[in-house]
Order: sequence, then C-alpha cells, then structure tokens
Amino acid sequence: MGNVFGRLLRVSTFGESHGPAVGCVIDGLPSGIRIDLEAIQRDLDRRRPGQNKLTTQRKEPDTVEILSGAFQGFTTGTPLAMVVRNTDQRSGDYSEMATLYRPSHADRAYDLKYGFRDHRGGGRSSVRESIARVAAGALAKQILSHVAGTRVLAWVQSVEQVDASVDHPESVTLEQVESSLVRCPDATASAAMEAAILAARGDGDSVGGVVRLWIERPPVGVGEPVFDRVEAELAKAMLSIPATKGFEIGSGFAGSRLRGSVHNDPLATDGDKIRQTKNDSGGVQGGIAVGEPIDCRIAFKPTATIASPQRTVDKEGKEGVLAARGRHDPCVVARAVPIVEAMAALVLADLYLVHRSRAGTYPAPALENSP
Amino acid sequence: MGNVFGRLLRVSTFGESHGPAVGCVIDGLPSGIRIDLEAIQRDLDRRRPGQNKLTTQRKEPDTVEILSGAFQGFTTGTPLAMVVRNTDQRSGDYSEMATLYRPSHADRAYDLKYGFRDHRGGGRSSVRESIARVAAGALAKQILSHVAGTRVLAWVQSVEQVDASVDHPESVTLEQVESSLVRCPDATASAAMEAAILAARGDGDSVGGVVRLWIERPPVGVGEPVFDRVEAELAKAMLSIPATKGFEIGSGFAGSRLRGSVHNDPLATDGDKIRQTKNDSGGVQGGIAVGEPIDCRIAFKPTATIASPQRTVDKEGKEGVLAARGRHDPCVVARAVPIVEAMAALVLADLYLVHRSRAGTYPAPALENSP
Amino acid sequence: MGNVFGRLLRVSTFGESHGPAVGCVIDGLPSGIRIDLEAIQRDLDRRRPGQNKLTTQRKEPDTVEILSGAFQGFTTGTPLAMVVRNTDQRSGDYSEMATLYRPSHADRAYDLKYGFRDHRGGGRSSVRESIARVAAGALAKQILSHVAGTRVLAWVQSVEQVDASVDHPESVTLEQVESSLVRCPDATASAAMEAAILAARGDGDSVGGVVRLWIERPPVGVGEPVFDRVEAELAKAMLSIPATKGFEIGSGFAGSRLRGSVHNDPLATDGDKIRQTKNDSGGVQGGIAVGEPIDCRIAFKPTATIASPQRTVDKEGKEGVLAARGRHDPCVVARAVPIVEAMAALVLADLYLVHRSRAGTYPAPALENSP
Amino acid sequence: MGNVFGRLLRVSTFGESHGPAVGCVIDGLPSGIRIDLEAIQRDLDRRRPGQNKLTTQRKEPDTVEILSGAFQGFTTGTPLAMVVRNTDQRSGDYSEMATLYRPSHADRAYDLKYGFRDHRGGGRSSVRESIARVAAGALAKQILSHVAGTRVLAWVQSVEQVDASVDHPESVTLEQVESSLVRCPDATASAAMEAAILAARGDGDSVGGVVRLWIERPPVGVGEPVFDRVEAELAKAMLSIPATKGFEIGSGFAGSRLRGSVHNDPLATDGDKIRQTKNDSGGVQGGIAVGEPIDCRIAFKPTATIASPQRTVDKEGKEGVLAARGRHDPCVVARAVPIVEAMAALVLADLYLVHRSRAGTYPAPALENSP
Repeated sequence: MGNVFGRLLRVSTFGESHGPAVGCVIDGLPSGIRIDLEAIQRDLDRRRPGQNKLTTQRKEPDTVEILSGAFQGFTTGTPLAMVVRNTDQRSGDYSEMATLYRPSHADRAYDLKYGFRDHRGGGRSSVRESIARVAAGALAKQILSHVAGTRVLAWVQSVEQVDASVDHPESVTLEQVESSLVRCPDATASAAMEAAILAARGDGDSVGGVVRLWIERPPVGVGEPVFDRVEAELAKAMLSIPATKGFEIGSGFAGSRLRGSVHNDPLATDGDKIRQTKNDSGGVQGGIAVGEPIDCRIAFKPTATIASPQRTVDKEGKEGVLAARGRHDPCVVARAVPIVEAMAALVLADLYLVHRSRAGTYPAPALENSP
Repeated sequence: MGNVFGRLLRVSTFGESHGPAVGCVIDGLPSGIRIDLEAIQRDLDRRRPGQNKLTTQRKEPDTVEILSGAFQGFTTGTPLAMVVRNTDQRSGDYSEMATLYRPSHADRAYDLKYGFRDHRGGGRSSVRESIARVAAGALAKQILSHVAGTRVLAWVQSVEQVDASVDHPESVTLEQVESSLVRCPDATASAAMEAAILAARGDGDSVGGVVRLWIERPPVGVGEPVFDRVEAELAKAMLSIPATKGFEIGSGFAGSRLRGSVHNDPLATDGDKIRQTKNDSGGVQGGIAVGEPIDCRIAFKPTATIASPQRTVDKEGKEGVLAARGRHDPCVVARAVPIVEAMAALVLADLYLVHRSRAGTYPAPALENSP
Repeated sequence: MGNVFGRLLRVSTFGESHGPAVGCVIDGLPSGIRIDLEAIQRDLDRRRPGQNKLTTQRKEPDTVEILSGAFQGFTTGTPLAMVVRNTDQRSGDYSEMATLYRPSHADRAYDLKYGFRDHRGGGRSSVRESIARVAAGALAKQILSHVAGTRVLAWVQSVEQVDASVDHPESVTLEQVESSLVRCPDATASAAMEAAILAARGDGDSVGGVVRLWIERPPVGVGEPVFDRVEAELAKAMLSIPATKGFEIGSGFAGSRLRGSVHNDPLATDGDKIRQTKNDSGGVQGGIAVGEPIDCRIAFKPTATIASPQRTVDKEGKEGVLAARGRHDPCVVARAVPIVEAMAALVLADLYLVHRSRAGTYPAPALENSP
Repeated sequence: MGNVFGRLLRVSTFGESHGPAVGCVIDGLPSGIRIDLEAIQRDLDRRRPGQNKLTTQRKEPDTVEILSGAFQGFTTGTPLAMVVRNTDQRSGDYSEMATLYRPSHADRAYDLKYGFRDHRGGGRSSVRESIARVAAGALAKQILSHVAGTRVLAWVQSVEQVDASVDHPESVTLEQVESSLVRCPDATASAAMEAAILAARGDGDSVGGVVRLWIERPPVGVGEPVFDRVEAELAKAMLSIPATKGFEIGSGFAGSRLRGSVHNDPLATDGDKIRQTKNDSGGVQGGIAVGEPIDCRIAFKPTATIASPQRTVDKEGKEGVLAARGRHDPCVVARAVPIVEAMAALVLADLYLVHRSRAGTYPAPALENSP
C-alpha cells in the first residue's frame, strides 16, 4: 500500500533500485493535452545521479518510454504509463548491508514491516523510486502551465550551515538554478555549499539542507477544506520524499513567534484585482490557494549512508560496525529539487481537477465534446 | 470535498459554527472495542472555549451524543456517529464581516472557491469544526491504547517568543499539561506564556506558538511507503488544522544543518530488543514507525481575527478598515493541543488498520469469529 | 467499512434500526444548488413503512433535519448532514431472534463478521438504513435535474409471477407510479400484484419482485472506463441494496441469446443529432452514457423474515424452529422503488462530477467565481 | 479515471491495443507470498486470441514480464508491475472505423467523452485491456488459495440459445472446462455451442452467451455492508468487463418469482459446523460471505463488431454503411472465462484484506515480524 498518489490524478508508482525497471501509471489525465516528452526527460536528467562531482557516480541514461495513453503527441484520457529501465546495478556493493542495518536508514524498518526485504541497493527505499515521481510530475507541470500558466520552481536554500540569500524569489529562473551544481541561485552561497559537500565527502560524511519551493500563478480556488487543504496536501507530498524532516509554508515556524497585527496579510486593490500587500500566508488562506505565490521550505536530513564507521546491529541483534561502500550522495538536496517540484505539481494538478469538478457557473462546461 | 479523513478508519465530518450542529461519522471501526464516553467528553472539554481567562468566552457545553455504532458500551463495527449541538450563536457579531474580508482569514478564499459563503462566525472555517476531529480522535486514542498501549500526548512548546524547556518528554504527564492554563508542562514558561497572551489581548492583538506532539509506544511497522509514510500522513493531518504553518519530525529543520555522522541514530541491543541510542529520526525510518517515540512539532500562526484595525477590502474590492468584534481567542495553541492529539491518533489508528491487513504470519488471524 | 459511497460526491451513512437515529453526511456537493427540502421529505415518505395495507406497520414520521451545509436554502459546498430520529422501536419483538438465526438473513453473517451484534431489529442490516440513501439520493436527483434535466424514475415491473406490461417507459410519470399501492404503472398488473402480496401475507409468507429503473436524459459522457463504467457503478449500487439478487441493463440476460446483427443499435441522424434507432444497449456504450435513456432491471428476493415456521440454528449451533414475530413487509419491492432511484441518482451525480473535472474545452470553466 | 481497481489491493491498469504494451501495477500485496509465474502465464494463455478456430486470429505470445515487487520468487510487499508487449498490430484494418462509428461499440462514446480517440483497434476499449486484469487476477487467485484454500472457477453456461446442463458445479474441474473449445464442461452442449459460433461466423454475424462463476471456500466474513457487499463488488467487477449486460447471484432473477418459504436457505448443523441445506443465496447473506460457495452468472451480449453491413454514421453525422474488416471474435464468452475468474479473485482478495484489518481477536496478529 501507499504507492498510489492523488485523488483524481492518480499516480501509481513501482520499481526497486535493482529490479528490471521503475515507472508509473497516471490515471485521470484530461485528454487532448500536448505532451512535451523532452521536458519530461529534462526533469529526469536533473534528477539523475552521476551528473557532476557532487553526486553518486551511478551512471544510467534513465531514458523514459511511454507505454500507453498518448496518441500523436497528445494525452488520450486513458492511463499513461512511463517506464525507465535500470541498467547500472552493482548488487555486490551491498553485500554487507544484507546483514548489518544502516543507522537511520529504512533497512531495519522494512524488515520489521515486511519480514522480507530486497536488500540490494535499498530496494524500494532507494531514491531511484523518485524517477516515477519526477516523470509524472513533469507531466503535471505541463497541465498546470496549460490551465493557469502556473510555474513550479524549487531551489536549494541551504546546505549544512550555508544559507542562500534570495531576495526576489519571483524573479529566480530555472536557468539560474540549473547553472549551479547545487541548484542554488545565489552564486556566492552556491560555491560555499559546494565546498561544504566536498568537505563532507572527504570526511566520509554527509550533509543535509533545505529546499525552497516557489509556485507562481497557482490555479485560484484549489484546496479542499477541511482536511485536503493545499498546505496539508503539500506537506504530505513533501514529507513523502525520502530524507525529509520538516515542512513550512509562508512564515512557517518563524511566524509562530509573531503577533497577528504583524503577521496578517492586509488586502488592497491593485487595479481591478484584490491583492495581498505581503504574503506571510504563503499563498493560501483557509486551505485554499488565493492566487498569491505559494512559498514553502522543506528540510532534508543528511544522507544516512556514509563511509565512516558506525555502530549498528544485524538482523539477529548482533552488534557490529558498518562502513558503507557503494555509491552514495554526500548530499541529496540538489537532486531533490526536481523531486520537490514534481510532487508539488502533482498536488496542484490533482487539486485543480477536484476543484474543477464543481467550480464556476453551474452547469458548465458543455460536457459534450464536439468530436 | 476534503471532509473525509482516513483510508480504513474513515472520519466524515460536518458542521458550521452557526448551523444546528457539528459532528462526525466514523466508518471502519473494529467491533468489540470498549467505548469510554467520558474520555471523549473530556477531550471535547479540553478543546472547548470559555474555560478560562485566556480563551474566547463563547459558552457551550459541547455535550456529545452517540447516534449509532455502539451497543452496550462497545463498538459494533458499524458506523459510529457523534453529534454536538451548537447552542451559543451570536450571528450579530459578524455583521461587519459579511462585507469586509478579514486579512489572513478564510473569508475571501471561501468566496473565491464557493462563490457562496455562510459568513456567520466563519461558517465551516471556524475552529468549531475541530469538535468532530477531537471526538473521533478520542476514540482513535482508545483503539491505539488497546492494540499497542500507545499514548498520544501534546503540549505547548512555545508562545510568541517564550520557549518551554522540556528535558524528558517521555515523563511528561497529562496531568502536568492540564494543570497549566496554556497547557505547557514547564511551569516557569507557562507563566510567561500566559503573560504574553494577556498582553496581546490587552493590545487588541494575538500571538502564535508551537505545539509538541509526543507519541509513546506507537504500533510497530505502521506507515505505508512510498507515499503514505507516517511522517507524511502526520504532516498532512497537522497542516489540515486551521492556523498551522509548519511541521517537523525528529531533528526537523535543525537536523538539516547537521552532518550524517552526528545525525544518524546508532542501533544497539538493549536486552533482547534492538533500540536506537538516540532519536533524531523522531520515531520513523523509511516512513515506518520502528517503535521509538514519535516526536513532532507544529507551528501555529497568530490568530487572524484581531480587534486592532486592519486595512482590507470588501467583496467588490472597496477598501476599508476592519476592527473585529466578536469573541476570538488571542492565542489558539492551548486549545489546539487536543486537536493535535486527535489528528495524530486518527493517523496512527488508520495506518494500524492498513498495516494489520497484511501484517504478521499469513494467513492470520482466524477470521471466523466465534460468535 | 463499506458505509461510504461515491468518489467525489461522498455519502457517509450511519444508523441502526433501534439506535437513536439514522442519517448521512454528503461531502463534495457543489455550492449554490437550491435545496428542495420538500422533495427530500417526499422521497423519504415514499420509502416509509406503514403507508398502506401492504407494508409493515412500523409508524414513524421519518422527518429529516439538515444539520449543516445549507444556507438560505442553497448548498454551501460544505458537508451536508441529514438526520432522521428513530421513534417507534419495539425491541421486545426481537427477543427470539437474539438466539435463533433467521434463515437467509444477515443475522448469522454479522455474527461471523463482527463477533458482536445488535440483534434488535436487524441493527445495521435493517432496511431502515436505506433512509440515508433516499435522503442523499433525493438531493442527487436535484443536482442531476439542474445540470442535465435528468429524470430518474423507477417502478415495480413484477411481483412473484405477475409481470407488468409497460410499452412506453419514456412516458411513465411519477404520478402514475405513485397512484398504485405497489408502485406499478400498469393498473391491471398492479391489482394482481396487490393480490399476490396479500395472499402471501395471509400464508405467513413473502414474495419477491423486479424493479425497473428508467433514466431520461442522463448527462452525456459520464462513466469512467475501464472499471468505473456507468453499468458497473449502477450494478454495484443496486446490488448494495438489501435483498437484491440480480441486475440487468438494456437487453440483459435475454440479449445474451441474440445475434449481433439483431442486437446492435444502429446509428442514424435525427435532425442535427446522432441517435440510436433502438436501445438494446440500455443507454451506455463502452461504459459511457451516450444520451439515450438508461434502462435497468433489479431482482429482489422474497423477504427473508416470515411468520411461517422455519428450520434454523442458534449461535451455539443448536437446531430449532423460528416463526418470526415483529412487523415485516411481505414484499419489499414497492418500498424499494425510491431506494433504487436514490442509488441511481447518487451514481450518476458522482460520475458527473468526475467527468466534469476533465470535460469540455480545457481550461474551462473560469475557476474564479465572481464573489 | 476509472482504471484503478480495489481498495487495499489496488490494481492500476494501462494499455491500448495498438500502443507499445499493456500491463498493470498492483499495490497492497502482502509480502512473502510465493508467486507462481507459470500460473499467471497460463491464465494469460487462456485469455489469448488465436488459440483455435473459434477466435480471432491475432497472434501474439502475450508473454508477461514482472518489472518489480518480486524477489527470489516471493512478493516483497512493494508494488508488483507486470507488462505484456503488443507485437501483432495491424492498424490498416481499422482505417474505415476511423471515420464510421461501429454500432453498439465504444467508438462514438469515446469521442463524446474524450473528444479525442485512438481509433486503432478500439484503443483502450479493446478487449486487449483485459490482459492486465487476467495477470493481476491470477496473482489474486494465489493469495486466496493461500489464505483460505479458495478455488475460483468459471465456465460457459450458454451460447446464443444453447444451454449447458451442470448439475454438480462443485465437482466441475478446470481440466473439464479447458478440454472444451468453448470452455463448457457439458460436452453435448459444448459441441452445440461450437456449432452455433461457427454458424454465426459463417453469416458474418456474432453471438452472445452467459458465463457461470463458482467460488468454492471463499474466505468467511468478507464483504463490507452496507455498500461494499460481496455481491455489490462482484456485480461491479463483472459489469466492468466489456460486453456484459447482466449479473445474477444465487437464485437471481428467477428467485424474484418465488416465495420466501421456498427461497430461504434453512440452517442446520453438519457435525460441528453450521451449514445451509441449500444455497439460493449464492454464498452471501447480508452482503457477507458465509462460507457456502459463491454462485453467479454473467450475461454477455453478442460481439458488436461484425462483418455484415450495418447502418451507421460518421463523426460529422453523415450516414453510411459499415461492414467491419479486421480480426474479431464471433463470440467472446470462451475468452471471457479467465477474465471473469480474474475479476472475482481481485474482488475477494481485496475484501479479504479489508476484513483482515479488523477481523479476529483484537489486537492480533503480532505485528512485529521476526526478521
């Protein structure tokens, strides 16, 4: 259970790091949406390891194949399946982990839960699972762009102790983000983050960080109180990404230290539009997107698998010391950026469909398509 | 949409602040669980306003009535409906809000979404909606206690700038929490928090705060990777509570600044048990509860409705100044404590049922009940 | 589990025959739909027992109260809760059934499943549960009428061996149906059915029958292949009604004996419309409503609870003979008519919302309501 | 939407007849269940066309590949993906159908719904979609066999006017069914059915028929009243199969003509077991499986696509005459047999998991697997 995401746009994902393939099936797509396959591949490439000196050197092209749901470059309204073959598997690297549990890793938890575990490369708990999220999310971005001109962008806000300074998030571009190895648009911070990551790797260690998510022009009115609020669905989506430990929207934890008179977002007119004069709410009120940018931050812990020796136990409870071999990222946040974007896009596209089922003048729209 | 919570333990909630009643229907309860109605009422009383000088003075007994699903004090396995009548409604207090939108409130968002709004007392966006959550959650606590001896407890960790110091969360008791007007077990901090709240009220203002959630003995193995992880479901549940802006588990945002060698939770044997020697993971690994206490923090913004005048607009976009009348809490965190507990209990009880459908030796248990 | 119906229009029902109340919560309603409370009550009255000499004499007004989700006579888009109090409970009539299982009744099955049973009046297995269905379905009818001019009508097609002759189902009116005690628009057959029911009652026996469902102007394009087809959802809805044993659409079982050249529905133009020249398909093609009337038949078995003595056993397996006392209908089909209509309306309204989320020109409609 | 089946055992299917592949992802499988891949392939082979003179001559091996969720021959508890490549596609055969709608086929309905259609071979409405059902269902059969010794078997009960005579359904074997080209265990009827099919093909026509479903030893206690009854879920599952027009359980429509005293199933003791002395209920009481065999019949209409000329229209409403070319079965019921079995197995396995979440002594079972 737990491998299907969404209510009307349902993404069913599958795949282990050392099985034949990973992929997803997306049910609930509107028909007639143009599919930009290159954009999907581009997001998969952003997620891919082995891109530069900062990441694990597992080398796979991660080429996506569409198996269904598309015809002449458009969605047909039937399930769209995408699959990426696994090609570079080195199970031998994982022989020790077959016996010793990695601290703060899913190893032991999977044994507790399933009583049965594919120990090769983490199996389903491998970050390789996120390929399915990124592929589906890339398509969700296209839907959002089509229906509301929405732009979903994320970047690295901090690595270990290094914080980026981003004064105008609305003007950050994808190109700026991608021009940095760590995906941080603040060039000075980017260099310092890079150094922190390399230092950690040099020490056989790892570092954590924070990703910022910024969504321009979200579809207005989406979010389903009382439980399926925008921020609730985003929080779930983000905390479903491996290695996450926290989620904030708008003012977040810092906002809890303020007074209402300071925190509240005053309303004013801007031409014929109603706008907030600031956005401590992070784009939502009462669980509903009001049109202001959605602004979130997601905390990632340092990678659990490190080369330094650590105290641990094996299945039988026998204590031992583990120094992980294999190819492991010293920091996941740069590669997490497209995953964060993907999950955010899936949340909003799904909430858009739910909202659309009842939005606007009723009964609209004309349901009978002119064939 | 969005008013049903849970997958196997499905809670359907209803009710506006100024309608006849609020309540819930719980489907998916196991049969034969003893119902402690007094404990349900006790949690409702903890949530209730008008309890002391710190909260809104709306006075209602909030007496719960069970309409179905119980027989001779036990659950029958059929839907259990609970209803609480609204008795103290002063719609007149809300006449201004029928025209002017409250900044950082759901008022305008509901108009955007529904095009139609019950403006009396916030309608469905009123915190009165949480009665249904608390009643259902109180029952979920009883299930968890029955199946795993789980204890779900929350308290106020900070109010505005005042932080509590709680060195041994495992030894905090409900009595300690309840003996403080602000529900903070640190007596010194409690007094300072109380002063901060009264000061804010005196200024026609409001303050925010942080609630800490601590779950002892969660059922082992619950959580459904990859999407329905324990932390993902908790994050959603918490961010579905009005006025929340952030969620952390374990080390949270602070953990993102650490190195893996420091952050990782080493495993060791403790008698015949495998234990972590610390708990920066907050009780989950790989999205699965491993038996260590679950430790979370939830950020609440300051109450949006304040007596001080604020710039805003009305439906037509005409600018104006609003100084809210009516009975509004200057700080919601004390009353949020039982709501946080309730949502956490609903998450875990639901995940427990999902896990139980496939856990343990297969095929177990004997499905044929001896009548 | 199993007490929530629908995907976007989710109806959560509750209530036992001898508890305080029965009712439902409907989540997912569009806002701004005018509520005709009298029409809801009218359908409840059609379902009510004690209306005439043919039905059980349990006497209750079954007055519905709306607890939430309505404001000034319109839906608000928030959950709409409806409750009907139980007032005429005679538990004493059921003392024997506390020990002896009724043959072909849910008694023993509930013990097998729940190990715990409210034996009074069948508890949750009582047809009294259908009050919630009828109330919710009456509202669904109003939505369908509003969005597509849909008319959902059912009537009794046969009782025991007596078959009605209805040549022009499209011209049958509600008034015709209601003018017959057995709800059969063929007056001759109606009289014979009445006689059959009274004869069975006289013998301490019961009879079964068939209900026909006829839906004019269903919303075009609804139905979600491959699993959630119109006929699949209708089949589930109908077989979820107590005492049902079969479902047919269009040509049904008789159609399985035909050749394709006879069975196929030729297409032709009718002015600027495409129409079928006959309707053996029963209004659906490929699982999708194409605009032709939806035509179904539902088989009901004879009532299980009869006054004649029957061989049976008790919980401990001790054999005995049961002659049921209490107030039991000798035939359920007349009262099943509004239940069939209600379930059909719930199916179509739900499928309409699902379809609307992706139908028509994209992106439509304007999502931002003008407040 | 509508391509995901099940609640806890969720099967997400994909694939068009003329796309690269068809397949499914199954989420919610218990871990540690041995996978009999040969049995899966065997059921796929039973479904496959081109097996004999009675079916379409499309020739494809339909070899299944497992992409995930299995390790060393057992389920791991993670999603199990299966894919079958399409290899024999002759799109040219469908050129006429790109313009003229087939009567009683999904062609026009898909245009109405999606406004966009992959006309090659019916796209998603092709029976090729059922490969995913059969593969998933074959695995569900293995779960049911493992947990309750359940046997799910179906056969052809009638073709056109020819009825089989099967006096002892409990003793029908898979071998008997498979030894008949039309999958009818009554050899005399089988020969007559074969003749009827060949005669129809000779006339450029098609015939319908009825499939009987017989389930020995269903897991006791499954079924979730009031909506998710065993018969309701089976009815939905069966009516989701293309070309179905009706569903009966137990006495079915014939039972509606009986009296209660005849229809009711008396209870008696059989050693230390409680048994029904007959089974007009078809294995369920109150929506719950009581342990008696589940007995259903499903009506299939004659194949819509026939070689004889038929009146129809094109997209623009221009009338024309269509005589279908391409490879089309003159009768689908023989190939429908494994599909019926598969859907029944998916329903019961899913209901089993739902029931297991709350069944038996509470709290059971030990949730902590010994790793």
